[in-house]
Amino acid sequence: MTKILKDEDLVGSALMMIAIDALETAFLARADNRLISPPRHHVSFPDRGDLVFTVGGILGEKPLAGFRVYETFDGAEHSQIVAVWSNDDAKLKGIVLGERLGNLRTGAIGGLAIRHLSAPDARTVGILGSGAQARTQLAAAAAVRNLDRARVYSRDEKNRAAFAAEMQQALGIEVEPAGSASEAVDDADIVICATTSRTPVIRARDLKPGVHVNTVGPKTCEGYELGLDIANVAAVIATDSSEQTRAYASPFFLAGSGNEHRMADLADIIAGKAAGRGSPGDTTLFCSVGLAGTEVVVASAILDML
Amino acid sequence: MTKILKDEDLVGSALMMIAIDALETAFLARADNRLISPPRHHVSFPDRGDLVFTVGGILGEKPLAGFRVYETFDGAEHSQIVAVWSNDDAKLKGIVLGERLGNLRTGAIGGLAIRHLSAPDARTVGILGSGAQARTQLAAAAAVRNLDRARVYSRDEKNRAAFAAEMQQALGIEVEPAGSASEAVDDADIVICATTSRTPVIRARDLKPGVHVNTVGPKTCEGYELGLDIANVAAVIATDSSEQTRAYASPFFLAGSGNEHRMADLADIIAGKAAGRGSPGDTTLFCSVGLAGTEVVVASAILDML
Repeated sequence: MTKILKDEDLVGSALMMIAIDALETAFLARADNRLISPPRHHVSFPDRGDLVFTVGGILGEKPLAGFRVYETFDGAEHSQIVAVWSNDDAKLKGIVLGERLGNLRTGAIGGLAIRHLSAPDARTVGILGSGAQARTQLAAAAAVRNLDRARVYSRDEKNRAAFAAEMQQALGIEVEPAGSASEAVDDADIVICATTSRTPVIRARDLKPGVHVNTVGPKTCEGYELGLDIANVAAVIATDSSEQTRAYASPFFLAGSGNEHRMADLADIIAGKAAGRGSPGDTTLFCSVGLAGTEVVVASAILDML
Repeated sequence: MTKILKDEDLVGSALMMIAIDALETAFLARADNRLISPPRHHVSFPDRGDLVFTVGGILGEKPLAGFRVYETFDGAEHSQIVAVWSNDDAKLKGIVLGERLGNLRTGAIGGLAIRHLSAPDARTVGILGSGAQARTQLAAAAAVRNLDRARVYSRDEKNRAAFAAEMQQALGIEVEPAGSASEAVDDADIVICATTSRTPVIRARDLKPGVHVNTVGPKTCEGYELGLDIANVAAVIATDSSEQTRAYASPFFLAGSGNEHRMADLADIIAGKAAGRGSPGDTTLFCSVGLAGTEVVVASAILDML
């Protein structure tokens, strides 16, 4: 009996921590070369769009294998499929349909970066953007740090007010709208940048010393949401997949800045193979690209729990 | 609400005709270069096996896109997944899980070959093999021809008796076990060879003039179930995918025989672009390789009906 989960099944505040913990296991496997995460596979349907497959798996004890598929066809409705097999007995553990798993996965990667790079006593979050990614990133921050307060800025005043009301209710912390990007981040210990902006919304001077920054939105040479000077001042720059930053159709935003070569793999930081935050005054920067294959790991953990 | 079908949902005698008619549309699209059917995509999990993806789709009116995935892991239980999108609105039509769809698809390809290559008044079938493929091939023959009788031979007497009893009941025609391979086929208008034998189980002298033969089992130079002399006497040799016969790891059984170059594409025969049966005395041969992507087309038709 194959278990099948849909968006409406992926509810409850426990899911984010399950996802973050599953990804921690996956990132440790990656540092140990046991995470299977080959390049995406595209198949084109002329004039229609592509089917895009990302495969993922973990080798070792309790091995997993699976894939995610999404399409780029024209349409109002889009459905992703994630399927997971336990790889020691060929059993199909289940299938997860819909959009929520992908958002949860990306949020949880952000949470893992915050767990391992932000100040352990971080209390305040500044959020730029008020969409689905901003929501899951803040939920992930709240799962790994004992937060007091968050401030959100986005261009549309209604959106930021709705975000603040909804997230205050959901997370049980104070969440307030800010009048500008700099006001949202100026005393934040953690900054989440999850916009669609192709020009920088904040610069290094907007941030306080010791801040940790997640950038989730655009970050190619053609457009990026963070000022390049933030990378210059960062003591640590990390990403979930430096391979993927190099595979972008347009070069990664740090290419040619002198900073791209010191970018560390989050997996190596978690495994203790690369340096993380060194002192309370360090600025740390995490460039989230969505390590391929990780949806499978999150889906597997959720299929085990639900 | 995504429709999800499992093996237990794929029942009823109407399914075979739905599958054959759906494939006829797909083969006509193939003759018109509107069938998308790229090479399989394998992803390896070291020491465990592969995930194998076949993508398929039809361009034109009511465009379809989808894929099948199966695994080669060690285990008692195996699950295939087929997913189908309508490609004009990006809507996920549904998912079909399990083993039955693949068998139905391969049987229906055999039925399509029988519809377009066997004598229109064919009444008798000889079947070699008594497994799942032999069952669906015979059901497909019964869907496209007005059969009186079938004879089955396989090495195990119990298996062929069970096959005869079960298929007589299922199809409402006389089905009897034969004492040898040649006895099963000697007066047959249609011969279905669906064994696992790697040495020929019948030769040209076993067959009557005007017979149509489907070979579903082994057909590489390393092992093949049909005598090569059957290809020599055949007026028409067809396959569902000559690309796939050329992509076998071991060469196709007709390679070097002088017959491989006159092999026609079943799609072209159906579309009237290549010659089919010319006279009642012609022997015709269909080499079934399982055209990639056709599971998607069959799944789509079944999702529309159920």
